[in-house]
Amino acid sequence: MNKLVLYVGNKNYSSWSLRPWLALQACGIPFEDVVIPFDFAAGNPKLKAVSPTGRVPALHHGDIRVWESLAIIEYAAELYPEAGLWPKDPEERSRARSYSMEMLSGFRALRNACPMNIRRKKAGVPLQEGVAADIDRIETIWREAVARSGGPFLFGDFSAADAMFAPVVVRFEVYDLTRNPTSLEYMDAVKTHPAFRTWQEAALAEPWIVPEDEV
Amino acid sequence: MNKLVLYVGNKNYSSWSLRPWLALQACGIPFEDVVIPFDFAAGNPKLKAVSPTGRVPALHHGDIRVWESLAIIEYAAELYPEAGLWPKDPEERSRARSYSMEMLSGFRALRNACPMNIRRKKAGVPLQEGVAADIDRIETIWREAVARSGGPFLFGDFSAADAMFAPVVVRFEVYDLTRNPTSLEYMDAVKTHPAFRTWQEAALAEPWIVPEDEV
Ligand SMILES: N[C@@H](CCC(=O)N[C@@H](CS)C(=O)NCC(=O)O)C(=O)O
Ligand SMILES: N[C@@H](CCC(=O)N[C@@H](CS)C(=O)NCC(=O)O)C(=O)O
Repeated sequence: MNKLVLYVGNKNYSSWSLRPWLALQACGIPFEDVVIPFDFAAGNPKLKAVSPTGRVPALHHGDIRVWESLAIIEYAAELYPEAGLWPKDPEERSRARSYSMEMLSGFRALRNACPMNIRRKKAGVPLQEGVAADIDRIETIWREAVARSGGPFLFGDFSAADAMFAPVVVRFEVYDLTRNPTSLEYMDAVKTHPAFRTWQEAALAEPWIVPEDEV
Repeated sequence: MNKLVLYVGNKNYSSWSLRPWLALQACGIPFEDVVIPFDFAAGNPKLKAVSPTGRVPALHHGDIRVWESLAIIEYAAELYPEAGLWPKDPEERSRARSYSMEMLSGFRALRNACPMNIRRKKAGVPLQEGVAADIDRIETIWREAVARSGGPFLFGDFSAADAMFAPVVVRFEVYDLTRNPTSLEYMDAVKTHPAFRTWQEAALAEPWIVPEDEV
């Protein structure tokens, strides 16, 4: 079988890259990753060469190209049905997808105000309009899912839904966005997961600074 | 088996509602729809009552709630695997998902500048920044997919990917956004599909005007 090769951006900053990387890694799916550091001054010919949208993440599997974070996860879930990327129960699986697609399509205010920045020193920021509503909806999702599953992750064991929210866990942490005990407990489960730690270490070792994302 | 009930917004304006409605209808999946007219002055208590995000579309299946347009499509695809919502070939299916997720997460400039408005009289608009790039990427997707499949739809027969792009077909039409023959031919296939025509007739019969969406 051909190898899965996942192209990702800077691990410190690339929130969309983290999502499928973490899903595959946490669920034991074998793949290689290749980091393409952002280079805004030069445009993105290297990104264009690996991804039809010129954005990462992108997955190569032999001649097959898959792009968009969640489409990569769906592709891997079909290739490795036993890896548990999605919950086994159809209703829970559909909830996991609904939450994941909320993430994919929404929470713009939070995403714009608080770029993912793993090495950032924890400190609050003044919250612009819309960010509070995003935080509130995210905490509702976490509370609701953990109450149904019993935790520690949204659907019990680590799933694609946790991977989709992992960059938000980072943001809640480094921008100090919550005091809610249920949220903090869930965030702790994500932050101490070995797959997350592996990504985090690589992020902290990166030399690149992207000024636009230093808020 | 419990009935599928799909809650949708005004058919003239609700682009996200059109997507799963059209996918299910075109693929012969039995469901009922319920229109919840937008009522911005009054807030959205009726939307909140049927959907956890307070947004439509939302699908009810017995006690199960599914929200987010593409999550509804995935749920229906699992329930009716033979309906052909997604292409059968794994590579083509993954491409259909990548395109669909580009639609779900992107094309904001076009979506904001040109709200879906089925009854609008065809006429151009001055194009704001970013809209031309969105149009260009969409036409690249259509050209590429139809070249691979041979048409008339993106993956040969009508699939979820066509449903995801149908509101964009409406926009290209009513805002007169293209002269490209390949695009026009694809748009014609969508516009003359019986399922699209059924939605369009219902849209044209609606009495409601949403001033924000009259551009
Ligand atoms: N909706 C896409 C978003 C991908 C995205 O925006 N990636 C960013 C990095 S996190 C990127 O490649 N930016 C570079 C650019 O736009 O030039 C996904 O889910 O994969
Ligand atoms: N990402 C969502 C978008 C849903 C959405 O924005 N729906 C609009 C109608 S097209 C809505 O319900 N707006 C009412 C509101 O936000 O109050 C999806 O794919 O279903």
